[in-house]
Amino acid sequence: MAEKTLDFWFEFASTYSYPAAMRIASLAQARGVTVRWRPFLLGPIFKAQGWDNSPFNLYPAKGRYMWRDLERICDALGLPFVQPSPFPQNTLAASRVAMVALAQSWGEDYCRAVYGAEFGDGRDIGEPATITAVLTALGQGAERIMHQAQTDAIKTQLRAQTEEAQRLGIFGAPSFVTADGELFWGNDRLEAALDWAKR
Amino acid sequence: MAEKTLDFWFEFASTYSYPAAMRIASLAQARGVTVRWRPFLLGPIFKAQGWDNSPFNLYPAKGRYMWRDLERICDALGLPFVQPSPFPQNTLAASRVAMVALAQSWGEDYCRAVYGAEFGDGRDIGEPATITAVLTALGQGAERIMHQAQTDAIKTQLRAQTEEAQRLGIFGAPSFVTADGELFWGNDRLEAALDWAKR
Repeated sequence: MAEKTLDFWFEFASTYSYPAAMRIASLAQARGVTVRWRPFLLGPIFKAQGWDNSPFNLYPAKGRYMWRDLERICDALGLPFVQPSPFPQNTLAASRVAMVALAQSWGEDYCRAVYGAEFGDGRDIGEPATITAVLTALGQGAERIMHQAQTDAIKTQLRAQTEEAQRLGIFGAPSFVTADGELFWGNDRLEAALDWAKR
Repeated sequence: MAEKTLDFWFEFASTYSYPAAMRIASLAQARGVTVRWRPFLLGPIFKAQGWDNSPFNLYPAKGRYMWRDLERICDALGLPFVQPSPFPQNTLAASRVAMVALAQSWGEDYCRAVYGAEFGDGRDIGEPATITAVLTALGQGAERIMHQAQTDAIKTQLRAQTEEAQRLGIFGAPSFVTADGELFWGNDRLEAALDWAKR
């Protein structure tokens, strides 16, 4: 029997990626689906749609709704929630570190810790000190990892991954792509995506 | 005990309003929630956000995704689905008729029939003949109703309802508003909105 897999495309600045990142591991395990965590940058994808900022900032009615909706969702899940400031945050360094981390056993823990710092604790993940603290708390040599994350190899990998997201038709985060190419968008589509991957 | 109510804000051109309209009655009944159907026009609301067309047409990647997502949702619900052409459709006449119909006992049946004609049968609800056929199939005097829908009183009511939607912070459809002012957006928030209304 072929392994059942699902690609989880996320961006650290993406609000609805926070509950998705916190929920996906246990939901996938319950269905026997293996998840591949794939960070990417929304900036270039939003630019291609003519946006130079988060649509939640560009369209204030939608933004106001999103913050309340996310608060309700986190409440229902028992997840701590603080509206991050600034929003959106600069996620370039955090994402490059994720490329390093996800090649190692503690990669998913790192991603969850970054989301928790940003949306649970209200810390600015655009600050190198925040990422350093997350790495240290995970028992990793922060200086070494931060250095590795700045190599050309990692920069190129993250750029290629963002381009792949765009080729797949991804326009927002979180997105989920099954092995047979079905795209699902949004934390509220996580269960449907896992169910599809399981078929 | 106060009656539990939920306002269901919909626009006939809105794609995700189709499954919401088909699902809401039985889900509300199961929870003891009374639903008030409130048609409005998205055009003026989209214009206020700087859009002169559906965002699904303005942002093609999002549009392509939406059609596939809606197809999957209708499949799972056993709802017939045809991508309407043109999209979006001119819903002014259909919405004015809905204002007349919803003051009568067959109003919700009319709304479901319009959605079924558009998204189930692929008919153009911008054509008066489609609305006439829907009314006739419901046993209503189509000519009389169509005439009533063109009175100033009805035109004013629909305009006022659209302005109310905008004041409530509604930016898309379907939207749901509880008696205590909580806004929920999207077919995928229908259950959460009903659960909130039931609290």
